[in-house]
Amino acid sequence: MALVVQKYGGTSMGTIERIRNVARRVAKTYDAGNDLVVVVSAMAGETNKLVALANEICEFPDSREFDVLVASGEQVSIALLAMCLKSMGYKAKSYHGWQVPIVTDNVYSKARIIEISDKKMRGDLNDGAIVVVAGFQGMEGEGSITTLGRGGSDTSAVALAAALKADVCEIYTDVDGVYTTDPNICADARKIDKISYEEMLELASLGAKVLQIRSVEFAKKFNVDIHVRSSFNDNPGTMVTKEDKDMESVLVSGIAHDRNEAKIAVMHVPDKPGIAAKILSALSDANISVDMIVQNVSESGLTDFTFTVTKADFKKALALIRETAKVINARDVAADENISKVSIVGVGMRSHAGVATKMFETLAREGINIQMISTSEIKISVVIDAKYTELAVRVLHEAFGMSAKDVFAE
Amino acid sequence: MALVVQKYGGTSMGTIERIRNVARRVAKTYDAGNDLVVVVSAMAGETNKLVALANEICEFPDSREFDVLVASGEQVSIALLAMCLKSMGYKAKSYHGWQVPIVTDNVYSKARIIEISDKKMRGDLNDGAIVVVAGFQGMEGEGSITTLGRGGSDTSAVALAAALKADVCEIYTDVDGVYTTDPNICADARKIDKISYEEMLELASLGAKVLQIRSVEFAKKFNVDIHVRSSFNDNPGTMVTKEDKDMESVLVSGIAHDRNEAKIAVMHVPDKPGIAAKILSALSDANISVDMIVQNVSESGLTDFTFTVTKADFKKALALIRETAKVINARDVAADENISKVSIVGVGMRSHAGVATKMFETLAREGINIQMISTSEIKISVVIDAKYTELAVRVLHEAFGMSAKDVFAE
Repeated sequence: MALVVQKYGGTSMGTIERIRNVARRVAKTYDAGNDLVVVVSAMAGETNKLVALANEICEFPDSREFDVLVASGEQVSIALLAMCLKSMGYKAKSYHGWQVPIVTDNVYSKARIIEISDKKMRGDLNDGAIVVVAGFQGMEGEGSITTLGRGGSDTSAVALAAALKADVCEIYTDVDGVYTTDPNICADARKIDKISYEEMLELASLGAKVLQIRSVEFAKKFNVDIHVRSSFNDNPGTMVTKEDKDMESVLVSGIAHDRNEAKIAVMHVPDKPGIAAKILSALSDANISVDMIVQNVSESGLTDFTFTVTKADFKKALALIRETAKVINARDVAADENISKVSIVGVGMRSHAGVATKMFETLAREGINIQMISTSEIKISVVIDAKYTELAVRVLHEAFGMSAKDVFAE
Repeated sequence: MALVVQKYGGTSMGTIERIRNVARRVAKTYDAGNDLVVVVSAMAGETNKLVALANEICEFPDSREFDVLVASGEQVSIALLAMCLKSMGYKAKSYHGWQVPIVTDNVYSKARIIEISDKKMRGDLNDGAIVVVAGFQGMEGEGSITTLGRGGSDTSAVALAAALKADVCEIYTDVDGVYTTDPNICADARKIDKISYEEMLELASLGAKVLQIRSVEFAKKFNVDIHVRSSFNDNPGTMVTKEDKDMESVLVSGIAHDRNEAKIAVMHVPDKPGIAAKILSALSDANISVDMIVQNVSESGLTDFTFTVTKADFKKALALIRETAKVINARDVAADENISKVSIVGVGMRSHAGVATKMFETLAREGINIQMISTSEIKISVVIDAKYTELAVRVLHEAFGMSAKDVFAE
């Protein structure tokens, strides 16, 4: 008998009929002899509806009250699912975050979990009940409701699995698992059977939206195996787990793309120490995060300093940088919103040379100019003209043999 | 400086614009130098929507989970109102029932309040904050959410006023106060300025829907003055308070009607001890409440036993009574759904003779036949043919001089 944590997202809980479907899945797992904790999100669309109400009331809703408001969506879901299970003859009990309790810090709307007590849940599990927990919710030390940020139910599920030392954490979603790349762009995209926490973290931060990043960090920290799978069929999904030998033999596990950034270049800056800090502090003072940063090799005492920010921050960043450019005597500021970041990810890169070369050659062959490059141990990102995004993803997917059944390194 | 508890119902909280209106009223009371606890209901329509979801999921929703579900409506309201007040520059803090805490028994969907702690609320009030509490909600001893039944927010407000020893409990609604009778039936209906708890209890139980009965019981027990008034204007409303001399001089304070009952008569029953108990126990075993009961004077050893039940219970009750009638050798069972109960209420009846006579004469003059009569110290109810309901209300309203400005006894 195993202890299983299952999480069902908003789409899986989107209608009464789908909630019934979730209940049948839960029942099946329970009937197979497992102890079961089920984490659910708000019905699809509900959270957006609540956010809209808040924005109608005032421009800047108070953060504590905002969390009280949006947490109500999950309350509806736990009640409906527990009700459904009980009507099917199963013992079931719903828990709000505060009832578990899931204790967090008091950073509303992106609270971090501090502690989870498993005592009450254990009692109900030992009693043969299916425990249904509201995802996304926590409670800070004074007893106010907090929420964990968009996608926070993933983190709730993984954290509960860690607290309960569950055998597996199953994250049910509307796709079959984690794909080598976006199937909407590349028809050959293949579901990945097994992927390491590190790769998943890179893919998640690069724009693949299957799991909330924080849930993967949590899983890595507490060694929780995550099984990402579809709630609409019985296909095995993707196992997110500790890195193993098999994974290292795969050169590239996934290709991500992100159209949500824009590029700003400060041209012909006097190449003196402290210039980079001056440019970046103007942005960080305004709470703008910078993603990629490239500084060209200096030439006759002048250098170009280029970076990317999210499109949402672009206008504000550009205005600030134009001010800063004057102060530091830069000749010009160039900006481009029509860019896209394409990245390849794989732990296999660590032990294989030539991956970058192959990536750049592949893009060059198609006439795709690389504007910026950024690398980590297991990732290479390039910034290219946005119009080449799909093409770049497809040719890289093919070049690294990712659609083939066996994707071992050459 | 007074401590004021205000309660706003679903209609007052029905839209974002109306919530803003509520916030302005609250702010005005606060600015006048009062400490303020505000109790709110779910936005109009929301609770019905949640109930519909439960009924879609299964025929008989589990009662614990049902309360978790429906309590979410008030959660939305407290967050939106507190947010709105904060955006207007006021200190405000929302409370769920469990956060107060409002401790109840564990009879889900009609829980009774056992204890209210005023400690946390006092802290916030002393801190200058407006306290916004979810009506309708409580928490039983084990930490599960309970609800107080339809209209339960009235009871929440009165109970909080009692716990806080508030100076007044203002119940805001969509009418100007308690009326002498239904203004939809009788254009002459007059708003009552002051009414006793006892009269309000009779009126509430007789079908006037301004206040939840339990809230009036609570107010009577703890001597809480209730001011029922409209959230859409500044008119003074109706004060529900302890009986005083003024009230006794009024013969009839209000006329109520209720079309929601049906009549069943067991005819020609052998008039032996224990017959009434046999008939009624068949119903109480099936959890059916009986309202009026009349047993005719026995004649030649046979008697007629007549009673009313709600229309919702009518079919089930009739089937049970047909069975019972055979057992006790009744000759026949007659049933009638086309009835209506019309009642006059007033503490003045205690000290004035002839009220019943006047009522019966007034109805007789219009050719309205009285089918059943039931009386209490301050109330006379008659069952009549439903088609005469409006007529009966109007002629009684006039006969007792209730539309006149001065309604003292003759």
